[in-house]
Formats: sequence, structure tokens, C-alpha cells
Amino acid sequence: MSPPSLSVNQTSRQLVKRLCEATEEYGVAIKENELGTTLIDAGVEAKGGFLAGRMITEICLGGYGRADIFYKRYNGLELPSILVHTDHPAIATLGSQFAGWRIKVGKYFAMGSGPARALAQKPKELYEKIGYKDKANSAVLVLETDKYPPNEVITYISDECSIQPEKLFLILVPTTTIAGSTQISGRVVETGIHKLEKLGLDPKWVTHACGYAPIAPVHPRFAEAMGRTNDAILYTGVVHCIVNHTSDETLRMLAEKAPSSASESHGQPFIEIFKKANYDFYQIDSNLFAPAVLIVSNAETGSTFKGGEINLQIFKRSIGI
Amino acid sequence: MSPPSLSVNQTSRQLVKRLCEATEEYGVAIKENELGTTLIDAGVEAKGGFLAGRMITEICLGGYGRADIFYKRYNGLELPSILVHTDHPAIATLGSQFAGWRIKVGKYFAMGSGPARALAQKPKELYEKIGYKDKANSAVLVLETDKYPPNEVITYISDECSIQPEKLFLILVPTTTIAGSTQISGRVVETGIHKLEKLGLDPKWVTHACGYAPIAPVHPRFAEAMGRTNDAILYTGVVHCIVNHTSDETLRMLAEKAPSSASESHGQPFIEIFKKANYDFYQIDSNLFAPAVLIVSNAETGSTFKGGEINLQIFKRSIGI
Amino acid sequence: MSPPSLSVNQTSRQLVKRLCEATEEYGVAIKENELGTTLIDAGVEAKGGFLAGRMITEICLGGYGRADIFYKRYNGLELPSILVHTDHPAIATLGSQFAGWRIKVGKYFAMGSGPARALAQKPKELYEKIGYKDKANSAVLVLETDKYPPNEVITYISDECSIQPEKLFLILVPTTTIAGSTQISGRVVETGIHKLEKLGLDPKWVTHACGYAPIAPVHPRFAEAMGRTNDAILYTGVVHCIVNHTSDETLRMLAEKAPSSASESHGQPFIEIFKKANYDFYQIDSNLFAPAVLIVSNAETGSTFKGGEINLQIFKRSIGI
Repeated sequence: MSPPSLSVNQTSRQLVKRLCEATEEYGVAIKENELGTTLIDAGVEAKGGFLAGRMITEICLGGYGRADIFYKRYNGLELPSILVHTDHPAIATLGSQFAGWRIKVGKYFAMGSGPARALAQKPKELYEKIGYKDKANSAVLVLETDKYPPNEVITYISDECSIQPEKLFLILVPTTTIAGSTQISGRVVETGIHKLEKLGLDPKWVTHACGYAPIAPVHPRFAEAMGRTNDAILYTGVVHCIVNHTSDETLRMLAEKAPSSASESHGQPFIEIFKKANYDFYQIDSNLFAPAVLIVSNAETGSTFKGGEINLQIFKRSIGI
Repeated sequence: MSPPSLSVNQTSRQLVKRLCEATEEYGVAIKENELGTTLIDAGVEAKGGFLAGRMITEICLGGYGRADIFYKRYNGLELPSILVHTDHPAIATLGSQFAGWRIKVGKYFAMGSGPARALAQKPKELYEKIGYKDKANSAVLVLETDKYPPNEVITYISDECSIQPEKLFLILVPTTTIAGSTQISGRVVETGIHKLEKLGLDPKWVTHACGYAPIAPVHPRFAEAMGRTNDAILYTGVVHCIVNHTSDETLRMLAEKAPSSASESHGQPFIEIFKKANYDFYQIDSNLFAPAVLIVSNAETGSTFKGGEINLQIFKRSIGI
Repeated sequence: MSPPSLSVNQTSRQLVKRLCEATEEYGVAIKENELGTTLIDAGVEAKGGFLAGRMITEICLGGYGRADIFYKRYNGLELPSILVHTDHPAIATLGSQFAGWRIKVGKYFAMGSGPARALAQKPKELYEKIGYKDKANSAVLVLETDKYPPNEVITYISDECSIQPEKLFLILVPTTTIAGSTQISGRVVETGIHKLEKLGLDPKWVTHACGYAPIAPVHPRFAEAMGRTNDAILYTGVVHCIVNHTSDETLRMLAEKAPSSASESHGQPFIEIFKKANYDFYQIDSNLFAPAVLIVSNAETGSTFKGGEINLQIFKRSIGI
């Protein structure tokens, strides 16, 4: 039985359609650009919200994962949280959701995530590792930004995806909004899979994954908003992976090394780490980017290993409670 | 960008349709009245249930909020609970869900809630405050009652809404049923927004809100059922509001004053407070009607304030555990 | 008002349809057998997953119950869990979901569960007790198995259901997979209702029910997988029933006797109990098969009774954490 041929752009297409049809409910605004590209504003001028954030999460997963908003009690602190589960972890998270496309055209900059990456193959090495390339006649990309993209940016994305501008859908979501905060926490599983991949695990061996993180209260300044939303994952995010692996010893080691606590930078709010790195994202120890807790179950042996702990104190400090 | 023109009657129309199409699953019975009005019985003679209660909650929110049933552990007590989130708090809760229409025609009395209120503008002052009036060619109203409404009641509602009886949908749900208990706990966010409004906050500044409350076990007598369902909100309900506000000091004060604990009556099961008020609802300190916990996040400053505490002891006493 | 005429096969038909249409998302493979029967492989050769497990749960409930995946914290242990609620407990659980059809043809053996049982009336006494027989022109049966059924098995099922092979849908799900583990935990409410019925309660008096259990990490060997998935219910499952009953005393007694702790075998992982019974399922004290906690609310009196406790230690031992 050959593996199913997943198309993240095609499968997420119906979710995009629903978002465009119920604009009021989702608090989004649709603008058709002069090039014919559909811009879905989920927080630049529109208000967005929890529902938009949840939908963006499912679109980012290429339609191959589910997101739900629920409530969690974190040692006396009650916070709305987002739960994600996927039965196609490698393709849904690394092959689609990961914010791995740095879009920089002229003065415009935004991180691109979601299905369109699988057409443009950004970054290439990651797609080679998971052996995935999408084919589709439309594309959707999520831009973490508070600015509408100028035409040259749209043309660039369109070209890289080999998709005509009229078949391109761009979802704009600022980090400082509820939709932004929700969809960033919705990346908790992706950060876990990504860290495991960095540590040497073949992501194709992860057959199923789930996890959750609290939705950080919004902050109007970008740096603080980015700090909080990162802390929601780093200090309070939990991920559970089902893996096919011949070696329990390797998985035990991975569960120990994967959580954010394995980084030397761990132990203070992200904004402080960011400051110490002179506001240069790429100066930060990349080991930090991982959930607080990582649980790995080996489907080959039945063993389960857990690494990391929730650190509520730091998350509370981060959100000022 | 102008604000979206929400229609609570039109958007909830499709939910009403689904309820009418899957009567067995929802445990409801549909009766077409001789005037042509559709009566949806969710617990008078029909059995109703959790699913009907959840659906009624979403209909009451005018289709602009989501309700989910989940499980919460309340300090050793496990109870099914209902979670609500909305990205249109003012219109969905005050402009629709709030049980603010006292329907009294002859001997018939019931509290009316849900979308039709936005056509009849009941109560008027509240609609003026949120600046909302719905336009629609059909209407749906939820009646908390254990009796089918006589024709004169239907005619009254129809007239007040300027909607022909054939275009009117009335959902009947007794307080003593599971559907009733579920949909009352589903009002937890509304009570929070309402209390903030009473304390002087412009409800239009609340941009997003979520919360939850346990679903109280049913009681066959109305007064006890009302007591329990109120206590689920007053002593165990949690609400989180995202607000745009220039003053953190004002929000800090509001978070302190908003929870039910700010009332002098707080501290005993609602049924006892009700008795002391000689069973006159309007003798009860209106400050009491609020969730146990209210968390307010200021989107303008990034600050978060929390007021109140869950008081499980009183809720346990209320439900006899 | 006569009781609604529920058809578990007809109502679940649309869920089966969705499963067959989104095979990639659900990780299932569809094979049309030479007899014309549709085999839905959710874990034999296909990978299945959380989503398939949740869908199988809803199909097993005949479309008259809902299942959701969420996260629960079990005293420091975070596990994905499945929540089930139904407003038709007797028919959805005993009349459909219960794995009560022992399918043994030649060397092939599998436990059959789900809607088709209500056509074949397996076991007959149970259907007489709940007074239910389905009529439908198609049937769906879930087989807990890791083998494709041979033609004689299909012919047997088809004959017993009086449904032509082309109108028969068989869902195959091994105990050792995530879909299997998910859908077994999704039986938590059924085990509660079943135990109450064994203790003498008329299941038709249970009007609504809900509950949850953690999804046990998978194990590659059948016996261990069966042990874990059973333990998820026996030691960590919680069920809440709303019952119409004239006697609080009877319900208090039932709540005490219903949880798994009422069995003498209670107190060790299921695999050890199974070994002591010489791997003969029918040698095990049948009182053991029940959730850890059972809460019963009497809709006639408003009383609530609770029996049993979560025993996390044993479940942790069972899953090796």
C-alpha cells in the first residue's frame, strides 16, 4: 500500500473558502489585490479573533490536523488554550505549518508559513528530508505581519510557487492580535517535531502527534507580543509524539534533549533572552525553540519517555500576572 | 474599514435549520403552531440533552460564538462543563444571548433570550448602548419555560419583532432539564460582559471573550434548578475578556469589582439568597450576577488583571455533593 | 409524544461516507471486496490515527453521540483524552457501541461492535432489554482486528444482518494502533452504562450520559495493548449519568457498586489479571469492566451520588511511565 499523496494546498483550500465566506463571523476582511491575489486580513485593519486564529492554525497544517480551543488550569491560572492533533506530523508541521520562509523583498519583511511553502520548497533541505513536494493549482500562505504586502512581494511569492497571482491567497496576521497569539500557540506541536528533527530523528518516523499551549494575552508592541507567544510554548507547551523507532535508548535521549529546558538560555522570559541577543533572532540558541514538555511513545516497543517540565513562574512573569 | 454588519437572526438561522433537521439526534420535537410559528421543544415534552443545550447556546449567541462541552476537574470533582468563546462579545452576548426580554402576556410568563431581541430591541437602553439593531426576515427566540406558549404570546412576540408568525422560531427549554442547565452555564461569558457594562465599561471595547462553567446536575423543581444553574456561574464560572482601554487603573478596578464576590449576598447557595429575598428576583443585589472569576486583558497596554476566586465549597453544597 | 425512532445504521451512514471521502486525512484505506463489501482499513495496513479513532467512536455510537479529543492533566501526567457525550445512552452505547458480537467463523475471530449489531440483534437478550431493533438498508460494523476478514466472514455478517454484501461497511481497527486505543477509550461511557445495567438498572432510565478516559500510548503486542486500553477505562475513566429513578437509595447503592473498584480483581494492571486468568477473558470477574469513577444524578430528585476514585498509580504502571 503506497503512502497517500497529500496535497496541503488543495486540502486546506476548502478551509480558506470557508474563511472567505464567513468573514463577519471570523472577523476578517477580504481584499482583492490589483494583481488578482486574495488578501485575507485577520488583524491588520480587521479585528480577527480566536476563531480566525484557530482556522489559520488548521490552514497552516494544510488541512491535515485539527485545532480546538479549550480551557486549561495552570496551577491556579485559568487560560484559554489551543489543542492540536495531527496524523500526518511531518507533512502537516514541517512541510506546511513551520514559519520557514523568510520573505524579504525591498523593505518588506515577513515570515511565511503554511501550504504555499510546499510549492516553493522553502527551505529546500527540509523538504528533501521529508521527501515532500506539493502539486496544486492554488496556494495559500500565512504572513505574520502588520502590513499589507506590496505588489512586488506578491509577485515574488507567486513566482516562487509557480502559481498565478489570481490563484494565490495570502492571510495576514499580526503577532500582537488574538488571532496571532492563538495561531502561534497552535504551532506547539510543530516546534516539538522540529526540535526532534534537529536532534537527528527522521520526522517521517513520527506517525501521530498532539499537544497544547495556552493562548498568551496580547501585547501591543511586537517584541513583547513575540516574547509572550514564544513563552507560551517554551514554558507551558506540551507535546506528545508517537514514533516508530528501533531504539528505546535513542528515544529516551531525545525526550531528554528535546524540551526547551535543554537550552542554556532557558529560565527567563523570551523578551530578556532576545534583548541579550541584541534583538537578533539568529543569535539565540536554537535549542531553546521547543515545547516545555515532550513525551515520546515508541510504537515499536510500547515504551514512553518524558522530558521537561512546565515552568509556570516564568510564563506568569512573561504575561505580567 | 467599517465595522461588519452582523445579523444575529440571519446567521443563527442555519443553526436553527440544523436543529430542525436532526430532531432525533438533538432530542427535540418540532411543532408547527396554527399561526404558522415553528415551536422547537427542547425539554417540555421532548427530552432534549447536552447537544440541544450546546446548540441553543450557539443560537443564543446569534451564531457569533462557539460552545463546546468538555470536562473539567474542580478540585477532585469532575464535571462536564461548557466553554464559550466569541469574537463579537457585545452583540453576541448583550445584543442577543442575554435573557433580557420579560415576556408576560396574560398568565404566561417566560424570559426571552436570543436573536429576536435584537429585532424587538428589548431592552431598548441596552441596544442603544451597544448601537445595534438587527434586520432580518426571520427571527428566533429562546424561551426559558416548561409550557408551550399560547397564541397571544406568539402574536405578541411576532408583533414586537415585526416578523410574521410563519417566520418566527421559538425554542422552549425548561430550567429543570439538561438542555436548560447546559444553556444557562453557556451564559457565563454574557454575565461577565454584562457586569462590566453595569460597572461602566463600554461593552463595545471588549473585542474578544471566552469562559466556561460546569453544567449543574439537574433538579426537578424550578427554584432549586435555577439556584444550581446560577451557582454554576456565580461560584465556579470563569471569564476572560480582551479589552481596548486607555487606563489600566480602570481595568484593575473593574476586575476587582466585577466578580460575584463583590456582592454582599455572595457566600451562600443562590437558593438561600432567593429565599431571603422572599422569592423576588428583583430584590436580590444585582451585583451578584457575575462569574466567580473575571480576568481582563488590556490590548492597549498588555496588562492583565484578575478578580475573584472559584468557590467550590458553595457549588458542591448547591448541587448536594 | 412517542419516542423518536432512531436508526443507528442510517444516522451513522453519513459519518461513514465522510470517512470514505477523506481517506488521506483520516489515514484510512478503502478496499472493495469481491463480494462488493466496503472494507475501511483504519490500521491493518493503513496508518489510521487520532482522527480515525474519534470518527470510529462516533460511528460506533450510531451517530447518536459525540466524541472529542482534548487534554487532561492526571496529577502531573498530561495525556490526550477522549470525551464522549450522548443524549441516547441506551441505544447509542448498549444498542450499538458495545463490542457484543463475537464473530467467529473458521479460524477468524474478531469482536464486532457498532450499528450492524442492532440489525443482527447480537446479543438478543440485551436488545430485548432495551427494546430496540434497527431497520436500515445498509449496515456498518467495526471489527477489532489486525486481519482482513475472509469472504465467509463477510457472508456470515451480511446474512445475520439481512443486508446485501454491497450494502455492508466493515471498519477494521487493530487494538495496537492509535485509532484502536482512541476508540477503546471512547467506550468509557458504554462500560459505565453496561455495568449499571448488570447491576439491575433499566438502561432506558438513563437519559443522558458523558465521560472521558485518557488515550493509552500504543503497544505493539496485542495482550499489552488490550491491557493498557482497558486500564485507561478501569483506572482513569470517569462517567456521569443522568437517570430518572424513584429511589435515591437504589442509585446511591448503584454508584457504590458500579465502579471497577467494586471488583476483587481491581488493584493491578489488567495484563496481570489477564495472566492470572490464564489468558481467558471469560475467567475474569465481569464486575471489573467499568470506569474508575461513576457519578449518577437523579433527575427525579436532584440528588447526585459518586462512586470510585481515579487510580493513577496503576495506570502509570500499565503504560510504563
